[in-house]
Amino acid sequence: MQFEEINQDGASVLQQVRDENGMISQELFQLIDDAIEARNSDLLVSLTQDLHEADLGDIIEALSPKDRSDFIELLGDSFDYTALVELDDSLRSKIVESLPNELVAEGISELDSDDAIVILEDLEEEDQAEILAALPAIDRLQLKRSLDYPEDSAGRLMQTDFIAVAPFWTVGQTIDYLRETTDLPDDFYQIFVIDPGHRLLGTISLDTLLRSRRPTRISEIQNEERHFVMVNQDQEEVSRLFERYDLLSTAVLDEGERLVGVITIDDVVDVIHEEAAEDIKRLGGVGDEEITDTVVATVMSRMPWLIVNLATAVIASQVIAFFDGTIAQMVALAVLMPIVASMGGNAATQTMTVAVRALATQDLDKFNMLRVVSREILVSIFNGIAFAIILGIIAAVWFSNIQLGYVMGAALVVNLFFAGLSGILIPVGLQKAGVDPAIASSVFITTVTDVVGFFSFLGLAGWWFGLM
Amino acid sequence: MQFEEINQDGASVLQQVRDENGMISQELFQLIDDAIEARNSDLLVSLTQDLHEADLGDIIEALSPKDRSDFIELLGDSFDYTALVELDDSLRSKIVESLPNELVAEGISELDSDDAIVILEDLEEEDQAEILAALPAIDRLQLKRSLDYPEDSAGRLMQTDFIAVAPFWTVGQTIDYLRETTDLPDDFYQIFVIDPGHRLLGTISLDTLLRSRRPTRISEIQNEERHFVMVNQDQEEVSRLFERYDLLSTAVLDEGERLVGVITIDDVVDVIHEEAAEDIKRLGGVGDEEITDTVVATVMSRMPWLIVNLATAVIASQVIAFFDGTIAQMVALAVLMPIVASMGGNAATQTMTVAVRALATQDLDKFNMLRVVSREILVSIFNGIAFAIILGIIAAVWFSNIQLGYVMGAALVVNLFFAGLSGILIPVGLQKAGVDPAIASSVFITTVTDVVGFFSFLGLAGWWFGLM
Repeated sequence: MQFEEINQDGASVLQQVRDENGMISQELFQLIDDAIEARNSDLLVSLTQDLHEADLGDIIEALSPKDRSDFIELLGDSFDYTALVELDDSLRSKIVESLPNELVAEGISELDSDDAIVILEDLEEEDQAEILAALPAIDRLQLKRSLDYPEDSAGRLMQTDFIAVAPFWTVGQTIDYLRETTDLPDDFYQIFVIDPGHRLLGTISLDTLLRSRRPTRISEIQNEERHFVMVNQDQEEVSRLFERYDLLSTAVLDEGERLVGVITIDDVVDVIHEEAAEDIKRLGGVGDEEITDTVVATVMSRMPWLIVNLATAVIASQVIAFFDGTIAQMVALAVLMPIVASMGGNAATQTMTVAVRALATQDLDKFNMLRVVSREILVSIFNGIAFAIILGIIAAVWFSNIQLGYVMGAALVVNLFFAGLSGILIPVGLQKAGVDPAIASSVFITTVTDVVGFFSFLGLAGWWFGLM
Repeated sequence: MQFEEINQDGASVLQQVRDENGMISQELFQLIDDAIEARNSDLLVSLTQDLHEADLGDIIEALSPKDRSDFIELLGDSFDYTALVELDDSLRSKIVESLPNELVAEGISELDSDDAIVILEDLEEEDQAEILAALPAIDRLQLKRSLDYPEDSAGRLMQTDFIAVAPFWTVGQTIDYLRETTDLPDDFYQIFVIDPGHRLLGTISLDTLLRSRRPTRISEIQNEERHFVMVNQDQEEVSRLFERYDLLSTAVLDEGERLVGVITIDDVVDVIHEEAAEDIKRLGGVGDEEITDTVVATVMSRMPWLIVNLATAVIASQVIAFFDGTIAQMVALAVLMPIVASMGGNAATQTMTVAVRALATQDLDKFNMLRVVSREILVSIFNGIAFAIILGIIAAVWFSNIQLGYVMGAALVVNLFFAGLSGILIPVGLQKAGVDPAIASSVFITTVTDVVGFFSFLGLAGWWFGLM
């Protein structure tokens, strides 16, 4: 996809950065790995100088843990700290903590404020304070203010450099200002119009500015700003606004409605990813785990979920224990009971997955709730009848006992009905109670389907065959 | 968040479009619903004329199925067809099919080409042909060519209107061209530089153009374009490129390396969402299901997964049936065996979730494979020992049988080990075999943990207590 000219030992080598699958190329990685081994700074600099920060980030992830900080220290001034922003949180803080604080301070002084915040926010307080102290006063104050905003808020996400002009300026004046000012943000997608009190009056997109004639007044071409976020708003709400209205960037206002920053789409794309990953992980019963976590961190993050599962499994077992006399008289019940529970668990998971996803994207709301709940009930009745017939026949034939087929079928109808109902009502209920449905739904749902599954099958069998 | 001035019966009403949760406001919805009931076109037009397409789309979703096409027909010329792009696929095609084809043709003739494709691509061939035939020849040819590209390819995603200039133009000439041309794309983020054969030479971002002086030659300020996609590339690869390099828009080239279109970040944000939703749904065992699907469509999409689950549940049951003699002599085994299986299933799901996610984002690759697999093995050995102790004690105390505690503990160590191993190796193996790990992993994994769980627990018990 992308080629780089690399000067190695005076010779010019055409080097591919990524292979056809989009992975960092083995050849480039080997060259870098050898250069670290040889502690050859100059070679490392020439190998990496034209790399995009994303490529540099992926190379750091691919390196062995002990080579990572060596790599950065060998690169020295030539290392682009934006590459650290591309890493997993846990990996980033581990690397940053292994580097001398003065080196980090020097590195982040060249970053945009939003990138600097990403690097600073997860550090231990002591390191954070030391790095901040080594920065120029103006940067320090700005970063400190951003760090005061709550985690995952718009204030943390925003970039505090932006371009704002007065409404009485002309297009020509604005363009001249852009041409003459050297200290502009790296990329910008719109220009803000503010009053003397820093209150936001409107915005102008760059293409509007380009299309307008020089004498035109800014106030004539500005859009009244209809989309903005407050500095304390959660990043999930921010990303929803971007997606809904296809925004490229949006103004961030403080409590006094003053313009304090701008959030751009590239940061929001990361948030969308994070939020989707969070839902997937929560549904799978893993916390904030990342692929780069250590054994201990992984055990710690998974343990609570396994303990919760242990508790629900014991509850389900107690239902079985209640019917131990019944099972002792008819072992076929022990063979078939996991099928009833498992079908219920699966059907409920299907419903829950759709519900959790729709709640997260706000596609399930008061307008269609009744429609969706009715649909789930109808689907579960239909599935219940279909699988009652299939599994009833299997059970009857397997154990040459047609009565057992009836009991199996009846238990499936009951369990799949409760599965469908809990699959939709539990996530909705949790959301209403202010709990993230992705985090808690599956625990409740497997408890319901196991308990109802074992109880309905063993209970019906005990009653039907008179084995209680 | 957002306010609209609505003129109703001559009075000016300040109307909020969304409530504090970001949902369409009940008041606005009621006004629209009443206006449809009363078939009051004028009122509907005034209620909706200032709405963003995303708001309009959400209102359509909130309406009852029979009101949706009435709403669009009542709005007539004033309906903005981009709102349809915001809807779920199945809902959109249902609505479009219920509208007269001439009306649809008129509506989409005003759309950008990428939006028109979204509306056209899911229609039945006959409707598609009729709508295309009613369009102006130049639009028709362009759309037909886009429809020839494979589904989910860059060619379907791209917008075919873009701005391209020659390298010998000056900044001044370019700006004048932008000012004088009225038929420009709605939004654009960069300008392309092409040679006379339409081959891409480079790009210029709008802020570079704004910052440069008028006599500057385009060739002096163009970026060499390092990121582009081919027209047949899959949208997932396209979105990965955007995310990796924080792109706002990218050129699309055909086989002859000619510039044929441009893909912008707003389309990619939708792709990112789709792909994340796909992974979540596949992990949950539901296909391409959407919250607006009918009962029949939902049953059809979920049935295959339930049948697969049925098959694996029957396999696990056969393991139990193999030990029916053992269970008959010791019913406590029937009570405890689901706990062993369930703990394994949960531990494996945790590992699988992390693995599937990391494979999807290319965070699990050849560089860290060995590290991650070793970590998972260590984690599962640790979890195995920890839960062997906890559950061994529970089993021993519950049934006042210390021997049963030993058996329970040993079975857990075995099952959690296989759970961890299969949780990582099955997704990786499926990916290598070219199968989406999100789709198939959980089936294989629950089969492994059920079979190993029942076999190790019942087998160890039978051997230990001499009950075989």
